[in-house]
Amino acid sequence: MQTLYSSPKQDGFYYPAEAAPHQGCLLIWPHRGDSWSYGGYAARETFVKICEAIAQSEEVTVCAPAAQYDNARLALPDHIRVVELSSDDSWARDTAPIFLIDGQGRRRGADFDFNAWGGLYNGCYFPWDLDRHLGRKVCDLYSIDRYDLQDFVLEGGSIHSDGEGTLLTTAACLLSPGRNPSLSQQEIEQKLLDCLGGETVLWLPRGIYNDETDEHVDNVAAFVKPGEMVLSWTEEEGDPQSPLCQENWEYLQAARDAKGRKLKVHKLPLPKPVTVSEEECRGLDCVDGKPARTPGERLAASYANFYLSNKNVIMPAFGDPMDEVAANILADCFLERTVIQIPTREILLGGGNIHCLTQQIPAGID
Amino acid sequence: MQTLYSSPKQDGFYYPAEAAPHQGCLLIWPHRGDSWSYGGYAARETFVKICEAIAQSEEVTVCAPAAQYDNARLALPDHIRVVELSSDDSWARDTAPIFLIDGQGRRRGADFDFNAWGGLYNGCYFPWDLDRHLGRKVCDLYSIDRYDLQDFVLEGGSIHSDGEGTLLTTAACLLSPGRNPSLSQQEIEQKLLDCLGGETVLWLPRGIYNDETDEHVDNVAAFVKPGEMVLSWTEEEGDPQSPLCQENWEYLQAARDAKGRKLKVHKLPLPKPVTVSEEECRGLDCVDGKPARTPGERLAASYANFYLSNKNVIMPAFGDPMDEVAANILADCFLERTVIQIPTREILLGGGNIHCLTQQIPAGID
Repeated sequence: MQTLYSSPKQDGFYYPAEAAPHQGCLLIWPHRGDSWSYGGYAARETFVKICEAIAQSEEVTVCAPAAQYDNARLALPDHIRVVELSSDDSWARDTAPIFLIDGQGRRRGADFDFNAWGGLYNGCYFPWDLDRHLGRKVCDLYSIDRYDLQDFVLEGGSIHSDGEGTLLTTAACLLSPGRNPSLSQQEIEQKLLDCLGGETVLWLPRGIYNDETDEHVDNVAAFVKPGEMVLSWTEEEGDPQSPLCQENWEYLQAARDAKGRKLKVHKLPLPKPVTVSEEECRGLDCVDGKPARTPGERLAASYANFYLSNKNVIMPAFGDPMDEVAANILADCFLERTVIQIPTREILLGGGNIHCLTQQIPAGID
Repeated sequence: MQTLYSSPKQDGFYYPAEAAPHQGCLLIWPHRGDSWSYGGYAARETFVKICEAIAQSEEVTVCAPAAQYDNARLALPDHIRVVELSSDDSWARDTAPIFLIDGQGRRRGADFDFNAWGGLYNGCYFPWDLDRHLGRKVCDLYSIDRYDLQDFVLEGGSIHSDGEGTLLTTAACLLSPGRNPSLSQQEIEQKLLDCLGGETVLWLPRGIYNDETDEHVDNVAAFVKPGEMVLSWTEEEGDPQSPLCQENWEYLQAARDAKGRKLKVHKLPLPKPVTVSEEECRGLDCVDGKPARTPGERLAASYANFYLSNKNVIMPAFGDPMDEVAANILADCFLERTVIQIPTREILLGGGNIHCLTQQIPAGID
């Protein structure tokens, strides 16, 4: 594995759309005591189902720290590879490299700095050194050369790409003082285009209410294909989420993508507010000497947090009447893929959902 | 990775000769404080040279425990892959699986039990659980199916194969009470043939004097090709090694391999006795509350502990007049390979040599 310090964009590399063909998917075994209730046992059952769904159409590798290797190996089926790899938590979307390709199908990893979603300003835990080093180890594991982009804090969940030059993010997250406070919005935009090989950045104002990632884009919206997207939606009166949805909608009405297109936007309904119970809070370790969650705290539930495997749309269910409505919308959007819906409350309790757990490895020639 | 409990031999799998084509080689970063003097820093310099020599003609992967990953990654060149993987010590020959192939070139790992060369009877350290689990992790890392052979203690260094049905071992090691005390020699022979796909086991009586592995065969002899081998040799009067060499010679005069051939044996001279210095002993952590080595202790130096990479014979040098003589003998034996000789005193101090550090992954189709 070579480490490169040049510009991915100038080298001809870009972030392909998630819908483009994958070699496989990387995930990380849930193990952190202040993220996963009661030792993570319930979360792991859901995690295994997600892995199995992905493995229906692409290779799956699960990273587990040494002390959890046996648990992961025994819980996961044989055709899923388990490798020993240390991490602080389990959100491969945010800690694994973003894999880029070039016109010839060669691959390189974009390895950004990571500070647990806000560092000492408003991050979720400290220290985060194992997560910060994970990108480098993953590139080495796959023998894929790596761009060292550690002068810029970025999580994969804060960026979507249409694969045709348009990057989608949220201002709420990328302009938060916990990420890159010394850079202006214009400088951040330039950095994104340079590191991920794009032409245009679309800045959705907001994400999902009370999302502890500072409102990651992957929890609120997703590309269906270039020029077309789904956007999480509610108009429920009194719900603090409603004005955020409205702001995003207005932004998108005026937006044009890298090809100059106006975006076709499908409203993807949100489930009713989901909150954490007292019993669930009791099963969580403390973080930095404080309770990890407070009973009644609203969780950032959203159907937009789905993963596009080679043949499936793997999406959350919350036991809500909207589960079926959202599944039908995604089925209509992704006609070449079959929707698999998995109840993911146990994952949501950890602070994310299916998309946050995954990182695709694009198909390529090396 | 599937785990199999059937008979490798009945499934058509066998242990190919080391001289057959390799995909690559697996090694483990030196890190154990009671094996490697003064934090292993000098051993690592030699280790890096060995890895570089192997990487001239095949892929090299180095496993490093989490705490040593950065040291390994920075010390090794980019084209060598480093993966996080826990171990107790660094002898991949003995702790990694032995990779088998079948007639179609499919590969499977033979994952035997490991007890640190003798368990609580006369093993080198306790506990050894990380080393014992390493074989399974390595199979998973390479996505190669695994035979669970954990009812039998066997180290790779105690077996050579000519790839044509002949396995070579030492009685001193395999009949030692620290391995499989409940099995007779005949039962052990049957187990070897069944697990490694052979027809005949040749039992050299002895190995190298004071070899703490109970006299592994890979430190005393090696196949040049089927029907032809090198045998470590001295006739020095008063050297306790001389009668061991004589016993081996006499055994081989009478032996026939799986094809009924008498073996052509090249005598490979041994260097003058090598002993550990007081200063070297001072740099070693204690093992089980006792000093790891005693000043003046004789080390098991031997030129037979070489590795056959795809294009090279990578062999030790000891700063002895015999270095050149031995190199010339191996050059004459392996006309299609170039000899690379590396001074390995720092590796020898850890209890083994180049061959002990390596485990070849045969080329195959999967």
